Amino acid sequence: MMIVMKPDATEDEIGAIIERVEAAGARAHVSKGDEVTLIGALGDREHVARLELEGAPGVAQVVPILKPYKLASHQLRDASVLEIAGRKIGGENFALIAGPCTVESRDLLLSTAQVVKDSGAAMLRGGAYKPRTSPYAFQGLGQEGLRLLAEAKEMTGMPIVTELMDVRDMEAVLEVADVIQVGARNMQNYTLLSEVGRSGCAVLLKRGLSATLEELLMAAEYILKEGNERVMLCERGIRTFETAYRFTLDLMAIPVLKELSHLPVVVDPSHAAGRRDLVLPLSLAAAAAGADGIIVEVHPDPEQAICDGPQALRSADFADFAAQVERATALAGKAFTAAA
Amino acid sequence: MMIVMKPDATEDEIGAIIERVEAAGARAHVSKGDEVTLIGALGDREHVARLELEGAPGVAQVVPILKPYKLASHQLRDASVLEIAGRKIGGENFALIAGPCTVESRDLLLSTAQVVKDSGAAMLRGGAYKPRTSPYAFQGLGQEGLRLLAEAKEMTGMPIVTELMDVRDMEAVLEVADVIQVGARNMQNYTLLSEVGRSGCAVLLKRGLSATLEELLMAAEYILKEGNERVMLCERGIRTFETAYRFTLDLMAIPVLKELSHLPVVVDPSHAAGRRDLVLPLSLAAAAAGADGIIVEVHPDPEQAICDGPQALRSADFADFAAQVERATALAGKAFTAAA
Amino acid sequence: MMIVMKPDATEDEIGAIIERVEAAGARAHVSKGDEVTLIGALGDREHVARLELEGAPGVAQVVPILKPYKLASHQLRDASVLEIAGRKIGGENFALIAGPCTVESRDLLLSTAQVVKDSGAAMLRGGAYKPRTSPYAFQGLGQEGLRLLAEAKEMTGMPIVTELMDVRDMEAVLEVADVIQVGARNMQNYTLLSEVGRSGCAVLLKRGLSATLEELLMAAEYILKEGNERVMLCERGIRTFETAYRFTLDLMAIPVLKELSHLPVVVDPSHAAGRRDLVLPLSLAAAAAGADGIIVEVHPDPEQAICDGPQALRSADFADFAAQVERATALAGKAFTAAA
Amino acid sequence: MMIVMKPDATEDEIGAIIERVEAAGARAHVSKGDEVTLIGALGDREHVARLELEGAPGVAQVVPILKPYKLASHQLRDASVLEIAGRKIGGENFALIAGPCTVESRDLLLSTAQVVKDSGAAMLRGGAYKPRTSPYAFQGLGQEGLRLLAEAKEMTGMPIVTELMDVRDMEAVLEVADVIQVGARNMQNYTLLSEVGRSGCAVLLKRGLSATLEELLMAAEYILKEGNERVMLCERGIRTFETAYRFTLDLMAIPVLKELSHLPVVVDPSHAAGRRDLVLPLSLAAAAAGADGIIVEVHPDPEQAICDGPQALRSADFADFAAQVERATALAGKAFTAAA
Repeated sequence: MMIVMKPDATEDEIGAIIERVEAAGARAHVSKGDEVTLIGALGDREHVARLELEGAPGVAQVVPILKPYKLASHQLRDASVLEIAGRKIGGENFALIAGPCTVESRDLLLSTAQVVKDSGAAMLRGGAYKPRTSPYAFQGLGQEGLRLLAEAKEMTGMPIVTELMDVRDMEAVLEVADVIQVGARNMQNYTLLSEVGRSGCAVLLKRGLSATLEELLMAAEYILKEGNERVMLCERGIRTFETAYRFTLDLMAIPVLKELSHLPVVVDPSHAAGRRDLVLPLSLAAAAAGADGIIVEVHPDPEQAICDGPQALRSADFADFAAQVERATALAGKAFTAAA
Repeated sequence: MMIVMKPDATEDEIGAIIERVEAAGARAHVSKGDEVTLIGALGDREHVARLELEGAPGVAQVVPILKPYKLASHQLRDASVLEIAGRKIGGENFALIAGPCTVESRDLLLSTAQVVKDSGAAMLRGGAYKPRTSPYAFQGLGQEGLRLLAEAKEMTGMPIVTELMDVRDMEAVLEVADVIQVGARNMQNYTLLSEVGRSGCAVLLKRGLSATLEELLMAAEYILKEGNERVMLCERGIRTFETAYRFTLDLMAIPVLKELSHLPVVVDPSHAAGRRDLVLPLSLAAAAAGADGIIVEVHPDPEQAICDGPQALRSADFADFAAQVERATALAGKAFTAAA
Repeated sequence: MMIVMKPDATEDEIGAIIERVEAAGARAHVSKGDEVTLIGALGDREHVARLELEGAPGVAQVVPILKPYKLASHQLRDASVLEIAGRKIGGENFALIAGPCTVESRDLLLSTAQVVKDSGAAMLRGGAYKPRTSPYAFQGLGQEGLRLLAEAKEMTGMPIVTELMDVRDMEAVLEVADVIQVGARNMQNYTLLSEVGRSGCAVLLKRGLSATLEELLMAAEYILKEGNERVMLCERGIRTFETAYRFTLDLMAIPVLKELSHLPVVVDPSHAAGRRDLVLPLSLAAAAAGADGIIVEVHPDPEQAICDGPQALRSADFADFAAQVERATALAGKAFTAAA
Repeated sequence: MMIVMKPDATEDEIGAIIERVEAAGARAHVSKGDEVTLIGALGDREHVARLELEGAPGVAQVVPILKPYKLASHQLRDASVLEIAGRKIGGENFALIAGPCTVESRDLLLSTAQVVKDSGAAMLRGGAYKPRTSPYAFQGLGQEGLRLLAEAKEMTGMPIVTELMDVRDMEAVLEVADVIQVGARNMQNYTLLSEVGRSGCAVLLKRGLSATLEELLMAAEYILKEGNERVMLCERGIRTFETAYRFTLDLMAIPVLKELSHLPVVVDPSHAAGRRDLVLPLSLAAAAAGADGIIVEVHPDPEQAICDGPQALRSADFADFAAQVERATALAGKAFTAAA
C-alpha cells in the first residue's frame, strides 16, 4: 500500500501514519518529494489489509499495491485444469456446456440432453431453481426439476450444471449437481459462497451485472478459502449505458482474468445477448479470445419455451453451431474436451 | 404491451401473434401503418406478463406499457406513512437514522446511541452482520452485536435498524430489529426478500449498485407480495464510470421513486461518498429533493473505527449536522419525526 | 508518479526505469519491499508527465500522484469569484441563469427574458446554434438568433449565455455573448476550447456525458492555458445504466469539483431530467449542495416549443420557482447575485 | 411512434394528441385498453420526427417505432462494399489497417509502413493531428506529419488513414488522406461531420466513449446526408464501471451494427485495451465475430514511442500477428483484401 500525504501535511501527521503502519506489523518506507511525501506500507498482505488510512489527518490518497485476493491469484500457481466427472476444463481443454434454460418437462430435457451430447457438449445445464426479477414469473420446477436432471444424467452420462439459490436447498442440489452454478445476482451473497465452498462441489461463479473483475475474484476467494479449489469464473455480460442489447458482453475479461487468476474462464453469450442470432458470433469471439468454455441455452422449440426462449439456440441447429465453435477454439490453441 | 412487427412480417406471422395474445387471455388491437404493423396486447397484467414474444417470427420489438409491479405502484394508493415503534416516516415526516457502521463494543454503541438520540435521530442503526467484499475482513460481532443493540434500544428507547444477510439468522435478528435492512448486494437475493416479507417486520431495502429503479421496485414487490407493507426504499449510490468517488449518489431517484411508488424513500449518503466531508452537502441535497429520511454513520473516533471510519461523521459534530439537515427538510415541506 | 515493479522484475529492469526517470529530469526514490519494489518519480509536473512507463519491462503499475491539471487546481488559489457584466458568481454569490432552450422568435425571447429578469435571474440563456443528435432536427436560427439575443440584452440589461459550436462563428457570437457556452458534446473539441480560451470571453463549460471530473478539469485547462481565467464548470447529467431518466444528474460533482478546483460550479437540471417536474427538486438539491448557480429552461408555452419543451419550466410558474431556489441557497451560505 | 396515455387521461387530452399527430401530417390509430389508451402515430419518418409529445397533458410515455436514421439503415440496401484506392472493405473483404499511433519521424514512419505492407495490411494509419486529454502533451507534427504520410504513400502505394480535428485543416488533410478519421471525442462535432460529408473523402467514424449505437448511426447520417456514402463505423471501446482496462471493447456492436446498418464495421482494439498483450486476443475475437477490418498500432520500438507506446504491437511481431488474424477472418467467411 502506498500512502500519498497532502502537500500541507505536517511532520506530526506524517509521523502518526508511520506509527500506525508499523503498529499493524508492516514496514514504512518514506519518500519526500518537492510537493508531496509518499509512505510505502510493505509487508504481509493481511497486516496491510487491516490499515484503514483513507481520510486520516494529512492523507491525500491511499493506493493499493498488492491485489486483495490470494488464492485466486495467478502468482501462486499455473493455470488450473479442473476435472468434472471426467471432463477437463482449462489449459488446452475447452468445455461446451449446453442445455435448456429451465427444466420444463421430462421429454424436453431428455431430448435436448441427447442433442447436446451428440454434438460434443461436455456438460448439461438446466435450471431447477430460477432467480426471476418478477415474483409473478415462473420460479422453476424445484425438486421435481432436480429429479429430471438426475434422469438425464443417468441417460447420457453427462455431468450436470445447475443453480443453487438458497443454502437450505444445498443437500438436494448436491445429489444431482456436478457443478453448482452461483448466479450473477448472488455473486456477493457471501453466505451462499461460503456454503458452496464448504460443499466441495465444483462451482460455476457468474460475474455480477456490475461487478469488477477484482470483485469477481474476491467472490471466488470466499469459495477457495473454504478449501474448495474447483471454481470456474463466468463472464455473462455487464450493465452499461447501451440499450441496444440486454447486457454488454465483456470479452476483454477473458485474457485479463486469465492473467490475474489461474481459474478457468467460461463465457455465457446467451444471457448477455438475449437474442439467438447473436449467440454464434459471440461464441466464436469468446473461443477465439481464449475462453476455456461457453455455456449456452438450447431448446427444441424456443417459441414455446417457458423462459428466455428468444435467446435459445434451436436443437436442430446445434450440431452446426458446435462445429463452428470447435473450429474457433483452435485459434487459441484449444480443443473440445472429451469424456475421459 | 405493444408488439411492433417487422416491415416484412407476413400475414401469417401477424395472425400467429394475435392468436398467442388471445390465447394468453389478453385482447389484441391491430394498427396497420405504411411501414409497420403494431399489435397492442391489452388486458390483465398477469395475463400479459406471461407472453414472451421477443424473437418470435415477424416480431421486431416488444414494448412494455404497464409497469411490471403492482403492489409497489403509486397508482393503487397514496404515499404511505409507515410507523416504526411510534416514529413516522413518509408524508411530512422525515426520519434521521444514525449510528455506527458496525457494532464494535458496548461503550462505543451506547455513547453513539445517546448522541444521535439527543440530536433528534428517529432510529439507531448498527451492523451485527456485515457483508464484506473480502473474506479476510471483519465480518461483524454477530449474536453479540445483536445483544448490544438490544441494550442500546432499552437504554434509549430508539427503534433499531440492522442488517440481515442469512435467512438462518432471522429469528435472532427479529428479537432486536424494528427494521431489517436488506443490503445492496442482497437486493436480488429473492430467498431473503421472501422470508423478510413473511416476517412482517419493517424493511429498509437498499438499491443494488447497478439496479434500475424498476428492479428496485420489483424487489420490493417480492416483500409486499408476502403481505408485508412496511417497506422503505433506500438509494445508496450507483456504480458509474466516475472514479472520483466510491459510488455516484443518484438523487434523481428520490422524486422519480416517489412518483412511481407510494413507499417512503431514504438516502444513504455515507456509503455512496465513502468520505465524511461529502456527507453534509449530500444530506442537505437529499432533504431538499424530498427524501423521507437519511441514514448516516456516526462514530466518536472515526480514525479508530474497525470499518468505514473515513465516512463516519464525528459524534462531536453530529448535533450541528442534524440541525442543518432539519433546516433543509423544510424546503420540501417536511419536519423531523418525533417519538409518538 | 509511483511505479510499482512486478514481483519478478530484475535488477536490470529496475535500473532501466530509474535511468528513464532521471533522464526525464525527475528524481527516483526506491523502496524495496518483500514482494515488490516501488519507485517514486518526483519532480516538476511537466517532467514527470513526459514519462510513459506503462508496459515497460518489469513494470506492474504506474500510479499518478499529482493531478494532471495545474491552472484549474484549487491548490494554487482560493475559490474564484467571476464577474460577468456586473453579476458575480462564486463565493457567496449564486447565479440563476434562465431562458428558452432555443431562440424561436422575437416575441417569445423578449417575453421570457422579462419574466426571468423580474424573478431575479442573473443571466439570460438562449441558443442560436443548437447541436442536435439528428441532422433532420431544427438546428437553431443562427445569425438571426444572435440578433434577437442582442435585442433582449439591450431591453433587459442582462448578460447573455449562448452556445458556440463552430470556431468560424466566433466573431458573430462574441458580438452578443457575455458567456460562451461549450456544450457537453464539444467538451473535448480541443480546437474549440483553445479558440474560446484565446477569445478572453467568459465560458460555461459543460461536462461531457461520460467525462470524469478530471477530464472536465483538463478541458478547462485548455481554456485557462490561453490566459482566459473566466471559466465556469457545468454539471448536466452523466450517462449511466439507468433508463428511468434521460441522464443521471451527478450532484456529488458539486462538492468534489469545489474541492479540486477554484472554478465556480453551475448545475443544469433541465437537460439531465428532460422533464419539467424534476427541475424544482433537483434545483433545490443543487443549491443545498453548494452549487454556485443553476441554468434552467423557461418557456411561456412549452407544449409549443420547437425543442425540449417537456423540460422547460412554464413562465407563469417561474417567480415561485426562483423564490424556492433562493431559499435553498441560504443552506449553503449563498444568496442570489444582483446587478452591481 | 406510439403514444401511451396516462390511465387518467381525459377524452379532451386524447383528442388533443390525435389532433397534433394529424396536424404533423401523420395518421393516428387509437387503441383503448382497460387501463390505458394507446395512440399510434404512423406515416413518413420526418413528419413523425417533428412531433415532440413527451410531457404533453395526459401523455405517459412516447415510444419510438422507426429508427431515426434513414441513409445509414440496412432496410434500404444491402451491405456496402467500399473501395479505397483499390482496396475493398465490407462483404467478404477484411481490411487490416495498421501503422504508428502518431507520425514521429521519417525513418520510423517509412520503416513501419514497409513492415505493415509486407504483412498484408490494406491501409496505413498515422496521426499528424492528435487529440490529447492534456494541453501539455505532444499534439502531433501537424503539416510536417502530413508531408511524411504523403512520402510513405508514394513509397508503399498504400492508402492513408489520418485524423482531422479542425475543419480549417481540411484542405491540407485532403491532399494526403484516402480516409479521414473522425475521432471518438469528435463523434458529435456536427460541424466537422458535415464538412467531412461535403469533402466526399472516405471516413472512418469512431464511436464516442459513451455513444449508443443509435447515436453512432445518427452521426454517420450527418455525413451520408451530404451525399458522401463512403463511411466506415469503428468500435473502439466504451466507458464502463470496470477499471481493469482503459475502455471496454464492445464486440456485440459488430453483429448488431451490421444488422442495423449497411456500413462496414471496423474495430480498434489498441485504444480500447491500452495494452499490447490484449491486442491479439481482441483482434482474433473481432475477426471471428464478423468485423470488416481492424485498425491497430505498430511501432518498431514501443518503449521509445512518443505516445501510446504500451499498446503498440512490435514491428518484429507484426507478420505473425497478421497471419493469426487472417486465420480468424475465415471463421466469418472473410479474407484479407488485396490491392486491386
